[in-house]
Amino acid sequence: MRHALGGKRVRPVLCLATGEALGAAPAELLPAAAAVELVHSFSLVHDDLPSLDNDRERRGAPSVWAQYGEATAILAGDALLAEAVRLALSYRTPSVARELVDATLGMIGGQWLDIRDEGQREELHRLKTGALFSAAVGCALAALDVPEPTQRPWRAFALELGLLFQIVDDIIDGDGFVLDVGADGARGLADDSAVRAQQGLAALDADTSVLAEIVDGLASRIA
Amino acid sequence: MRHALGGKRVRPVLCLATGEALGAAPAELLPAAAAVELVHSFSLVHDDLPSLDNDRERRGAPSVWAQYGEATAILAGDALLAEAVRLALSYRTPSVARELVDATLGMIGGQWLDIRDEGQREELHRLKTGALFSAAVGCALAALDVPEPTQRPWRAFALELGLLFQIVDDIIDGDGFVLDVGADGARGLADDSAVRAQQGLAALDADTSVLAEIVDGLASRIA
Repeated sequence: MRHALGGKRVRPVLCLATGEALGAAPAELLPAAAAVELVHSFSLVHDDLPSLDNDRERRGAPSVWAQYGEATAILAGDALLAEAVRLALSYRTPSVARELVDATLGMIGGQWLDIRDEGQREELHRLKTGALFSAAVGCALAALDVPEPTQRPWRAFALELGLLFQIVDDIIDGDGFVLDVGADGARGLADDSAVRAQQGLAALDADTSVLAEIVDGLASRIA
Repeated sequence: MRHALGGKRVRPVLCLATGEALGAAPAELLPAAAAVELVHSFSLVHDDLPSLDNDRERRGAPSVWAQYGEATAILAGDALLAEAVRLALSYRTPSVARELVDATLGMIGGQWLDIRDEGQREELHRLKTGALFSAAVGCALAALDVPEPTQRPWRAFALELGLLFQIVDDIIDGDGFVLDVGADGARGLADDSAVRAQQGLAALDADTSVLAEIVDGLASRIA
């Protein structure tokens, strides 16, 4: 399980930054932020398995199954998901865990469409990437008991950020959106998405300066 | 996911019967009961995989991976677990889901000890079988907001039932307890366990007649 962790941790940072923008102390958001990252890690551990993506490497190191065997990787993924839910359930309200589990079901559904190769690309992205990005923000909103109407613009921002992340991912990997609209087309889509995300942030009644940096970072990342 | 369901459904029956003994309408317990069964199903789907127990058959039919392939079985198991949590989160209180997830982590830990073949048999049973049996009762207690002190004798009963189930399982399969203490020894342990379970029930201030039938059924089952 420990071997599965690493990378940019952009989802928990997003969760913590959302909390900060809403005036919360980081400690209040840590279980939710960690839970979102553990769900992300769970999905990578299982997606890397031989019968799925068959990836022997992850972040420049052996993937969990390549290092410890398939059986351990399956159980480690299962335990990462269960531990994520346990952390999300450390809040008084069940809404943090609900947020997380809905996103997890979306992601698994997305991966299922992916292996069947029948889904629309946009739908896949929304499910696989957008769902957990949205949950990173949504778990912060839930943990802080932000009222539903106030949540809406935050959620629109979160979906936009998920789209931005995926477009840039495709530019880096040369697939997905790049195959659909070409490299320049994808760059244009990413820039438009970044503009919409920044506009969404600017319209929020909160100090969103750290979130604005996250948008810039996502839009300009090259790896 | 649908292919993974079936069998005796003893855990959800136990959950519903616990609720009935406590005076609840079945509908109140149905999400919790289904959640416990989905966790059980999740564990079977993943345990059957080639890298774990490599079982091609389950309940006289092809196991999920044998029928639909490993990738689908991994994702179906993941989704069964996530859907179980979603159902457990349909209650106002997060305690049903907490109960379920703690048991799930125990089960996964038990399976991990099993594949490493380093654990004590008793510890394994407690984790793998006892945890979810206990949760079948515990989820009913949590769903009905039964106060903690009132829960204790119920939980002792649930652990006893888990032990009973496992001893009889070993008698049927000729392994586990049978290898430790012989067939007659295991039968004696099962009978003693059934007596303790019935005594536990008799001491409860509730109509436990259906639960008493479940104990008899578990003690005398031959398949």
